[in-house]
Amino acid sequence: MGANDNRTVTIAAIARLAGVSVPTVSRVINGRSDVAPQTRQRVEELLSRHGYRRRPPSMRASSGLVDLVFNDLDSPWAVEIIRGVEDVAHAAGVGTVVSAIHRRTSSAKQWLDNIRTRSTEGVIFVTSTLEPPQQAELRRLNIPVVIVDPAGVPSQDAPTIGATNWAGSLRATEYLIGLGHRRIGFIAGLPQLMCSRARMDGYRAALEAAGLPIDDRLIQPGNFYHEAGFAGGARLLALADPPTAIFASSDQMALGVYEAVRQRGLRMPGDISVVGFDDLPEVRWCSPPLTTVRQPLAQMGMLAARTVLRLAKGEKVESPRVELATELVIRDSAAPPKV
Amino acid sequence: MGANDNRTVTIAAIARLAGVSVPTVSRVINGRSDVAPQTRQRVEELLSRHGYRRRPPSMRASSGLVDLVFNDLDSPWAVEIIRGVEDVAHAAGVGTVVSAIHRRTSSAKQWLDNIRTRSTEGVIFVTSTLEPPQQAELRRLNIPVVIVDPAGVPSQDAPTIGATNWAGSLRATEYLIGLGHRRIGFIAGLPQLMCSRARMDGYRAALEAAGLPIDDRLIQPGNFYHEAGFAGGARLLALADPPTAIFASSDQMALGVYEAVRQRGLRMPGDISVVGFDDLPEVRWCSPPLTTVRQPLAQMGMLAARTVLRLAKGEKVESPRVELATELVIRDSAAPPKV
Repeated sequence: MGANDNRTVTIAAIARLAGVSVPTVSRVINGRSDVAPQTRQRVEELLSRHGYRRRPPSMRASSGLVDLVFNDLDSPWAVEIIRGVEDVAHAAGVGTVVSAIHRRTSSAKQWLDNIRTRSTEGVIFVTSTLEPPQQAELRRLNIPVVIVDPAGVPSQDAPTIGATNWAGSLRATEYLIGLGHRRIGFIAGLPQLMCSRARMDGYRAALEAAGLPIDDRLIQPGNFYHEAGFAGGARLLALADPPTAIFASSDQMALGVYEAVRQRGLRMPGDISVVGFDDLPEVRWCSPPLTTVRQPLAQMGMLAARTVLRLAKGEKVESPRVELATELVIRDSAAPPKV
Repeated sequence: MGANDNRTVTIAAIARLAGVSVPTVSRVINGRSDVAPQTRQRVEELLSRHGYRRRPPSMRASSGLVDLVFNDLDSPWAVEIIRGVEDVAHAAGVGTVVSAIHRRTSSAKQWLDNIRTRSTEGVIFVTSTLEPPQQAELRRLNIPVVIVDPAGVPSQDAPTIGATNWAGSLRATEYLIGLGHRRIGFIAGLPQLMCSRARMDGYRAALEAAGLPIDDRLIQPGNFYHEAGFAGGARLLALADPPTAIFASSDQMALGVYEAVRQRGLRMPGDISVVGFDDLPEVRWCSPPLTTVRQPLAQMGMLAARTVLRLAKGEKVESPRVELATELVIRDSAAPPKV
């Protein structure tokens, strides 16, 4: 019985190979804590090597829990996603376990240990990922996974949910071009996320479609947080030939640009136009209220919860990738450039 | 055996009174779902009437979960609390189940049903409460409770965690008086919350200590949300003798005041000073950056988690009420009044 043997391996066979009893293997499979760590590791390795599959999700007892995993809980953005997931989960009588793994392997590992003991209906990762061995472990535990705003190339295994980032960015840039702007600055998102790339491409596509040159000095790196918007905005405004509009690819960065504009003694939208991306509830209330691309964050959370609960019941989903529509929300932060 | 009998009632006695078997009563006590609803209700009533107490928390198996219950997940404020709770819970290998009960009894009831089946180490209520019968049910299930920012009069049963609301409000008002303001508007929080009352009292105390009159027209109702700040700010600015400074008792309301100021064509802090309460991460980035009273929200969440996990282990806590210190953070939104 080698590693490439496709026959379904039995618990008895694993017990024999591991030199332990059948009940011990069962305890490992069921995530019980009363197994010595070395024994657990040996058994887990054998289960993994021989491709043992736990019972399909539909046959497992309901845990009454769904997991929602962020890298960091440090943004008003997160609460919108939580709200959507909790809403659907609550209605289904399922609790929402919120975790932050801080991009640390140790933290992700501890989270996975908890999952193993308490069980879960499924996991929603928000812009976060696990290391490949941990991903494999989740698969082997037969725990359904849904990814909101995947980092990097989407995995073939898990359905992903996002917004139409490219189209939203195209629309916002077209709007600024329509107002008469010819030099439009752009502040990018976290480089490792797919959504960041899509937003930058939408910006470039709109410029190219309008026959405008792409000036690399007008494109600033960023990470979605305020500070990066402030720094990028300050650099753009300090250029010898500064842009007349700045498109920040997150609302938090747009508010950072606001502060850079204020510190330079300029006024919005008279001296400079600013457009954001997200439509967080609070940007209606900044001064001036922000023109931005609305992402339906709570709806993305709702859809993620619905999808993971369907997968937990053993249902199939129609499409591995769903993008919900973005929409340009026009408020007071953009106007035609001064002539 | 009457309702006032203090002897510990046995499961056998409850079974006899309910006309069911001892295992059936056990199933009800252990929250198992394989009991007919009417039977469960009859048994629950008898358990409650005769003061049956489940095993103390220290004897229950660990659920690996702590519950965090909000009324609504609709504010950047919530994510700060979640972050603190998750941080401590994660380190303890415990998952954080986040729920919103929307001030609806049906919603709270469903949440309680879930708790009954999946079990929890303890519950942290954030500015939320249950109806008295549901509170009694939690007590009977022997689930420890901690309350962050209690609504109304704090319960004798559960430890509460807050910030020094009164002192923070006093300090902010003293600061404005020190800048030379004599007419200071105030926008209040949700009237049913203790913290709202404490903030208003701190404002009044500072005025009285400085020998300034309390003008009721300068005190506007509010609810902590942007809209109330906008409306209250607009009313204050429209007065025949408007204030030269406005103290909004939440940051979100302060941002609403910003918009009212902007729409009136006034400038901050030259024409009018604004001070908030909370120090949400984003108010560093509004224009101008907000002078505000910092509440240590994440630390309040951390302390709540630590407290509930200690109670779950059967430990005692030193004080039923802990207030963490607030601190005035001076930025650019307040200045001396124009002469």
